[in-house]
Amino acid sequence: MDFLTIAENAKKASVEISGLSTELKNNALQKVAEALEANKDKIFEANKEDLEQAKKLVESGELTQSVFNRLKLDENKMRDMIQGVKDIIKLDDPVNKYLLKRELDSDLKLYKVSCPIGVLGIIFEARPDVITQISALAIKSANAVILKGGKEASNTNRQIFEVLTEALNNAKGFPKNVINQVYSRDDVAKMLEAGEYIDLIIPRGGNNLVKYIKSNTKIAVLGHADGICHIFTDESADLNMASKVIIDAKTQYPSACNSVETLLIHKNFKHANELLENLKNAGIKLIDKPDSWHFEYSDKILAYKFVENVDEAINHINKYGSGHTESIITEDKANAEKFMNLVDSAGVYHNVSTRFADGFRYGFGAEVGISTNKTHARGPVGLEGLTIYKYKLVGNGNIVDDYSKGIKSFHHKDLEI
Amino acid sequence: MDFLTIAENAKKASVEISGLSTELKNNALQKVAEALEANKDKIFEANKEDLEQAKKLVESGELTQSVFNRLKLDENKMRDMIQGVKDIIKLDDPVNKYLLKRELDSDLKLYKVSCPIGVLGIIFEARPDVITQISALAIKSANAVILKGGKEASNTNRQIFEVLTEALNNAKGFPKNVINQVYSRDDVAKMLEAGEYIDLIIPRGGNNLVKYIKSNTKIAVLGHADGICHIFTDESADLNMASKVIIDAKTQYPSACNSVETLLIHKNFKHANELLENLKNAGIKLIDKPDSWHFEYSDKILAYKFVENVDEAINHINKYGSGHTESIITEDKANAEKFMNLVDSAGVYHNVSTRFADGFRYGFGAEVGISTNKTHARGPVGLEGLTIYKYKLVGNGNIVDDYSKGIKSFHHKDLEI
Repeated sequence: MDFLTIAENAKKASVEISGLSTELKNNALQKVAEALEANKDKIFEANKEDLEQAKKLVESGELTQSVFNRLKLDENKMRDMIQGVKDIIKLDDPVNKYLLKRELDSDLKLYKVSCPIGVLGIIFEARPDVITQISALAIKSANAVILKGGKEASNTNRQIFEVLTEALNNAKGFPKNVINQVYSRDDVAKMLEAGEYIDLIIPRGGNNLVKYIKSNTKIAVLGHADGICHIFTDESADLNMASKVIIDAKTQYPSACNSVETLLIHKNFKHANELLENLKNAGIKLIDKPDSWHFEYSDKILAYKFVENVDEAINHINKYGSGHTESIITEDKANAEKFMNLVDSAGVYHNVSTRFADGFRYGFGAEVGISTNKTHARGPVGLEGLTIYKYKLVGNGNIVDDYSKGIKSFHHKDLEI
Repeated sequence: MDFLTIAENAKKASVEISGLSTELKNNALQKVAEALEANKDKIFEANKEDLEQAKKLVESGELTQSVFNRLKLDENKMRDMIQGVKDIIKLDDPVNKYLLKRELDSDLKLYKVSCPIGVLGIIFEARPDVITQISALAIKSANAVILKGGKEASNTNRQIFEVLTEALNNAKGFPKNVINQVYSRDDVAKMLEAGEYIDLIIPRGGNNLVKYIKSNTKIAVLGHADGICHIFTDESADLNMASKVIIDAKTQYPSACNSVETLLIHKNFKHANELLENLKNAGIKLIDKPDSWHFEYSDKILAYKFVENVDEAINHINKYGSGHTESIITEDKANAEKFMNLVDSAGVYHNVSTRFADGFRYGFGAEVGISTNKTHARGPVGLEGLTIYKYKLVGNGNIVDDYSKGIKSFHHKDLEI
């Protein structure tokens, strides 16, 4: 099927699923979880084919070992994948929630109601478990989705998609074509131009993928390219706390987007030498004259710099940061407040490791991704980020002319939700 | 000053204003209102110069009379402009509102707090009153703004900007460069490419302006191009109500974006002939075979079509509409509910004229514009649409490693806001 037909079908499906009850959506998710369980051997089989191909590419140096690892589906990942779908069943339905109920006049009521966005375009790299996670999130939030995975995982992606599609086709009252998948590189180009059908693009992958997508589409993109996080150690910081937090933020998972990349130290912090010594002893390589302050090491490497005061720290972060997550270590509440108010990032922390920037840790139950956008959704994005709202207005033949002539008048009374 | 310097200054100003108290912002708005009052003669003088130029262009046919009318500032418009600023003083401060307070652990608290978006780029056509309205909205929501108005109004725009700037420079504690204005066509091109500095573009003007901007920038754009609104007269509709509502929606202000353009009639509606007769008698020109169903007449012209049922009406609207506002006239509650759930538009109405789609009528107090976007803000956008949020996390040296090793655990308890 060509891309435009798929996109048109997805758009139709997005309307059909938008009216579906929570019960029918949860039932469909339950069928998906069961089908994955029942067909896991088929999926492992398909994954083996991808792994064999990928192994050759690793040997010839065309693929990195880490991509190979992400590609591999084992019993543990399969269990997590199925559990992930079951977890989404338990989450609150994010659509059809009343955000406002207002009487404009005695016979004219306005309702602001959450609703799905429409059609999501998902472009992801090696990890085939993204398919089930995003599909489950899309189903729960009543969005249709068009998936495009990495070609290294194409056998696995096809097999998982087949299992999902069959399960959904058999789920009671569930519309066709909610979940769609495309496979070619051409389809990515078409997806990025399909603003008529696709309402939001979500890239799941490395910097280069995200940057490429952001600079090649006019459709809204939810995500982040860089994760250049900062920690500012203020004059009054506690040495032990600073050491502990920075070591966690740099070494607990160095390639994560919420790892710290730059340490700013107040010039009057008395324990600076001990702090740097502690970091070195934790295996962190320190750089005091980096080529660029706007760089994500994704490794146990940390750039550092002394600053005059909290203002210089704030300016540095707003200039070189990526708007992801920044933390101040201080015992001075006024400085903490200033930092948290004036640093323009999705996450602004006080005496906490930057690694907490995560949907599960925030208690969202599931995560679509982390956004550094300044509109729609920012920071770790849960199900709510896949919704928008519409205004429903119910009257009794009300016309504007009556209000403009003063025959009737608005009284704007908010009702309890 | 060149555009990039202005943009850099605006970005700095956006950080400075983000921490400003409601009191200081309201004080600045009060100074603006007073300065407009004190300097209105200067502004009228500048407006006269623009009108003289514009008059020549109207005579030579290069400018329409309606643009000339929008350009003209008289005592009434000046009064409305000043009152608009005063009204914004009275509105709730949309920033620094807690949207979520959650204990992740006994010593780790998460706050989701509303905050300004950053720098807004406003591109508007003839109406010089847009400057004060948008500047006041930006100040209240703590955003910086770069304005670019139509060249026909350049003298008026310069004069109003001068008055505003002087008032703000004298306002207590108010940062410099919050409100900026540029004048050349080149600056528009630079603005559309300045994603590093500008977070949101808001076009205020006709279809062509909005379409041009949407297709020439990667920055998020808030607004709408077309306003192709529909009314569906169902089988069970009341003839009088249908006539009254459609006449209001078409004739009360035909060039408004929330005027109806297409009437869909259930094939079994018994009073179809009388309805069409009533519309004709109200001076509406009816078209039963339009060249396109995706067309905004902006005049007392209405396309109409008979449909099989509510489903065909929904499909027609989702296919040819612009996602603005649609209404169903029916006595059948089930059909009304179906229509309102499945029509994918910012406004879905039951027994109401489409003309109610407006921030003031919704009770927002002020309107940024009407958005047909599927992300961030939809429908009439008030002050809230100029905000986003950040996550503040306050702890006591908390590190992720403790939670991942099970030494500590999350308890995710929501606190009262």
